[in-house]
Amino acid sequence: MSLINFLDLVGTFVFAISGALAASEKKFDIFGAIFVASVTAVGGGTVRDMILGTTPVFWVMDTNYILVITMAVAFTVLFKETVARLRTTVFLFDTLGLGVFTFIGLEKSLFLDISPAIGIVMGTFTAVLGGVIRDTLCNEVPLIFRDEIYATACIIGGFVFVGLSYLNIDFNIITWTCISTVIAIRLLAIRYHIGLPKI
Amino acid sequence: MSLINFLDLVGTFVFAISGALAASEKKFDIFGAIFVASVTAVGGGTVRDMILGTTPVFWVMDTNYILVITMAVAFTVLFKETVARLRTTVFLFDTLGLGVFTFIGLEKSLFLDISPAIGIVMGTFTAVLGGVIRDTLCNEVPLIFRDEIYATACIIGGFVFVGLSYLNIDFNIITWTCISTVIAIRLLAIRYHIGLPKI
Amino acid sequence: MSLINFLDLVGTFVFAISGALAASEKKFDIFGAIFVASVTAVGGGTVRDMILGTTPVFWVMDTNYILVITMAVAFTVLFKETVARLRTTVFLFDTLGLGVFTFIGLEKSLFLDISPAIGIVMGTFTAVLGGVIRDTLCNEVPLIFRDEIYATACIIGGFVFVGLSYLNIDFNIITWTCISTVIAIRLLAIRYHIGLPKI
Repeated sequence: MSLINFLDLVGTFVFAISGALAASEKKFDIFGAIFVASVTAVGGGTVRDMILGTTPVFWVMDTNYILVITMAVAFTVLFKETVARLRTTVFLFDTLGLGVFTFIGLEKSLFLDISPAIGIVMGTFTAVLGGVIRDTLCNEVPLIFRDEIYATACIIGGFVFVGLSYLNIDFNIITWTCISTVIAIRLLAIRYHIGLPKI
Repeated sequence: MSLINFLDLVGTFVFAISGALAASEKKFDIFGAIFVASVTAVGGGTVRDMILGTTPVFWVMDTNYILVITMAVAFTVLFKETVARLRTTVFLFDTLGLGVFTFIGLEKSLFLDISPAIGIVMGTFTAVLGGVIRDTLCNEVPLIFRDEIYATACIIGGFVFVGLSYLNIDFNIITWTCISTVIAIRLLAIRYHIGLPKI
Repeated sequence: MSLINFLDLVGTFVFAISGALAASEKKFDIFGAIFVASVTAVGGGTVRDMILGTTPVFWVMDTNYILVITMAVAFTVLFKETVARLRTTVFLFDTLGLGVFTFIGLEKSLFLDISPAIGIVMGTFTAVLGGVIRDTLCNEVPLIFRDEIYATACIIGGFVFVGLSYLNIDFNIITWTCISTVIAIRLLAIRYHIGLPKI
């Protein structure tokens, strides 16, 4: 398993925890928690694959995702207080997931010979759509439409990826620069409470 | 038409009624009622087919579904009081639909040589996602995340299907044992108010 | 670029404005506005393509759509007062978009040799589903389920399209009769406050 694959599962685990926590706030039962955790973790990539037509979608062909999500929900149930206390750690891994998911979505799209602009859209979708579906299911207005910079970090990371690709730079360097850009922008936005202007 | 095909249309009819009733509580117009009835009845199978990539999705190729849904909405409008009085009958057929839809989703997935765990997910999706989309459209938190055991009955029915398949039992027996399991668990859950633990 | 293609982009532009206005009422940020504008403008066609399996969906293969949507959001931000004042003009173009989108969805489906009844469903989906997703994301009950006749105009336009096709009439005449029917019915419905009966 490559490092990116491993980080993908780490991101899935942490996104699933954020879904399980949202379900817990709404007093859902265990099934509801698994469902919301799943759409949070793999919803973005699922929509991406359905839009691109790369079906069956990724988690159908690799049961690791379902396994990791179930473990994340079990973890949240068993160690609820710990998870609450580890808020900062969860946030840091969530930000890592944001970067990795953006990269994976970009890579998958550009592999299909799609225009870079659409690739950036797909990277962003992969990273943020799960959270949008989670909030819609929980009957909330999606957080990322109002919060500190979130999707914008993915978009900028996408431009970095595309820009560096034109320069014929080593793919490993492109990968990690893209992921680091997303993470750095998100962390700075949270640290200094930077949001986009309201419309 | 096989018995399963017939029961599939019966399930579609009853799921559509439940959608039309939800629309009626929200004071939607006739188009809104047809729309909500449709997503309730075929929404789960539609998402399943889009995830698996078996497109065009099933109801595009077989207009019986649209016909049955339209009839269900007309029936609900014309015999509103009867439908309200027949609450128990509607509930029983709804439970039948739950079992049949689970089986159909499972059969379709395993036919595609997908892992059994994902087949169980697809069977459950087929049976319950329509209700989730119905509630989301009606601006409600999905009922099945909080209610008596519902999706769990489908999941257990799925395990029964997969378990029996390994034993090389006659497919007819597998089919009806799977469907009966879903129905029995759901009926028992309602009768004794059994819910999953909250998270 | 054919006239229909041009009107398609005009419809996309105006639908995107209606999405951006909805986002602005909810105090979303710029990213939220672009997202809601996008689903309003291309959400219907996206679901249509995913249901039919004509993937990658249309806007992945033609970046004009993303470009037009971004321009529409910029226009709404820069000329907010003008857009508010031009309410009638926006409404007229929105109605034009309704007709054109219905036609495009119909044409695409029937090209795939799908039954006319399903073609009418696809035409209607193309025209109205974007608005349904917009309202769901904004945590509102979809407007078109309660409002003056809207989807019904698309359905009737679809019947006109199908009926004329059987008569072997010139395709240009079919096209414009279909589009004009949708527009005329919608305008009459608004003018005389005609709604469907509630269920």
